[in-house]
Amino acid sequence: MDKNEPIYFTRGNPATDALPIDDFRECADAIFKEEGRVLFQYGHYSGYGPLRQWIADWFGVAYEQVLLGNSSMEFLTFAAALFVEKGDTVFLENPSYDRAITAMKRVGATVVGIPLEHDGIDLQAFEAALQKSVPKLFYIVPDFQNPAGVTISIEKRQRIAELAREYGFLIVEDAPYRFLRYQGENPPAFRELVPEKTLHISSFSKIMSPGVRVGFLIGPKDIMPKLHKWSEDTYIHPALVTEGIVYEYCRRGLLEPNIESLKALYAPRMACMLQMLDKHLPGIDFIRPEGGFFLSLNLSDEINGRALQENAEKFGIVLSNGSGFFTDGQGDNFVRLPFCGLSPEEIEEGVIRLAKAIDHHRI
Amino acid sequence: MDKNEPIYFTRGNPATDALPIDDFRECADAIFKEEGRVLFQYGHYSGYGPLRQWIADWFGVAYEQVLLGNSSMEFLTFAAALFVEKGDTVFLENPSYDRAITAMKRVGATVVGIPLEHDGIDLQAFEAALQKSVPKLFYIVPDFQNPAGVTISIEKRQRIAELAREYGFLIVEDAPYRFLRYQGENPPAFRELVPEKTLHISSFSKIMSPGVRVGFLIGPKDIMPKLHKWSEDTYIHPALVTEGIVYEYCRRGLLEPNIESLKALYAPRMACMLQMLDKHLPGIDFIRPEGGFFLSLNLSDEINGRALQENAEKFGIVLSNGSGFFTDGQGDNFVRLPFCGLSPEEIEEGVIRLAKAIDHHRI
Repeated sequence: MDKNEPIYFTRGNPATDALPIDDFRECADAIFKEEGRVLFQYGHYSGYGPLRQWIADWFGVAYEQVLLGNSSMEFLTFAAALFVEKGDTVFLENPSYDRAITAMKRVGATVVGIPLEHDGIDLQAFEAALQKSVPKLFYIVPDFQNPAGVTISIEKRQRIAELAREYGFLIVEDAPYRFLRYQGENPPAFRELVPEKTLHISSFSKIMSPGVRVGFLIGPKDIMPKLHKWSEDTYIHPALVTEGIVYEYCRRGLLEPNIESLKALYAPRMACMLQMLDKHLPGIDFIRPEGGFFLSLNLSDEINGRALQENAEKFGIVLSNGSGFFTDGQGDNFVRLPFCGLSPEEIEEGVIRLAKAIDHHRI
Repeated sequence: MDKNEPIYFTRGNPATDALPIDDFRECADAIFKEEGRVLFQYGHYSGYGPLRQWIADWFGVAYEQVLLGNSSMEFLTFAAALFVEKGDTVFLENPSYDRAITAMKRVGATVVGIPLEHDGIDLQAFEAALQKSVPKLFYIVPDFQNPAGVTISIEKRQRIAELAREYGFLIVEDAPYRFLRYQGENPPAFRELVPEKTLHISSFSKIMSPGVRVGFLIGPKDIMPKLHKWSEDTYIHPALVTEGIVYEYCRRGLLEPNIESLKALYAPRMACMLQMLDKHLPGIDFIRPEGGFFLSLNLSDEINGRALQENAEKFGIVLSNGSGFFTDGQGDNFVRLPFCGLSPEEIEEGVIRLAKAIDHHRI
């Protein structure tokens, strides 16, 4: 670590050193040899069949319930295009994944942010918002949320599932971090609680490689034909070549051990960050996640958060713009802290610098 | 060739036997070794930098004028989303690429088809349509058009370029076949005639591999920031892994010889089809292309084209639905004939079967 280099608390990248490049080389070569004539030719609009089947078996769903795509992010644009008309309401957690907010605003949705608490959204606020306007979609990151790090409790999940049935809205469950739990047990996914109303979106970005851009969507059988067709009309079919590499990696049984080794790498990084925050930022409100990529701080009004974000580089750190994660212009005092791509040394030094920067911006 | 198998005159696939799989294996392994830490990680929303630069040099444009994407098809949806509001007019050739018609209708465009003649669109009809409504976009496949096989003359190109300047509409020039001219010389592209008003869209699908899904867009500097941003907001970034393979293939100087060998493979197929049509379908109006993947027949009213399409399989051939290529429900008597993915034997037998089928459907 170079003491003169800034420490980036920005993008949620996996650790580059953990990318299993040599395995990818072997998998690519083997699958290109075996299936090159399929992978490099035009293919099916729902993606490479063997990988679809592998995922269907993994999740215990039917083949036609699985759609592959060039990132899970793009599925948000599919859902927005198919189910949201200009002026329709969409609910999101507040804060939420900035790119999801953008995807919904891009189609002219009226975006309603439901306040996020330490155990998931504020249910009272949710039900009050439902009384005003039933959303077409409720976009949620239930596990180790991006950006806050929150996991929604089982009780809140159950209530939301009930409400989805009662009011008929679709839940868009964005769950790429769910595989990376460092302690405790996963509560059931919305896909399990209310499968008929859930589009479960996930990807290999956090557990294998983001650069392959292989995402997948699992949805109810009655809705899937629309999504498959949208895929075809958007790009004929997603990239088969990368799907072939991912398939070979999975078929060889490399995914599960890779997830285990990522957990072994990331868990101490999260622990280190929590320890450093306890030590250097006592009294600050922050989320204690049990997995994933992020935790977050909610700074009190005694801190000038906007100035902190703008001046962070002077203190040797780079922060994301907090307000990008909010539906309504809040977020000056919200700080997202990704930890997976940083070494423990960088985390230690980064939190020390952050503490100094925060201290400097007390009002 | 199995005499009992139908011959597919449908999708415009490149010849599977011509896919250079072994080269792809070598290129993948080399670039993954060298650049794996970049290619398998998150990257830039405009695509893999070295491939962008390679394309910029190839076309003699600035780096920022090049955007990479997961197919050229998807760029049509970008152009539609960015430049067409519901109810806006879009011009296309009639017939046109069926997926382009779908992409424009999908955003609610009022689609106007300009009749296609043997040397490109009917200019009089084009100017008359301009008087009624100036389009936001004019989508055109100028070289060896999909589906008709027509190449638009230089005189018509020049006039359209003038009109684009005068009326201010954007030309979306879809040019994946331009590299595959089997005789004669390419006229200038719209990109060259009116660069400030042209989005030039192309891909490696027809000259290397469709399965990699690597397309590229070249546009004017003032418009590009919107497109780059749309890319980021759609999928964060396109698939770097496949772009890396394509880059290595190009860097090694393999693209140009591959194009030459494809021309050597496809030119006799086109010649064979023309010869067979002359022999077995005398008096039928068909396009004589000088390159690309397709030629087409315009059957006279003496033929029941709809019944021909529906019954084709009984005669051992499969035809595309002609009306899918038209903006206005025409096309029953339009037959697209792709020739690149068929062997000369299949072409000979296919045309004989087609002639029988047509003969059977005389009214």
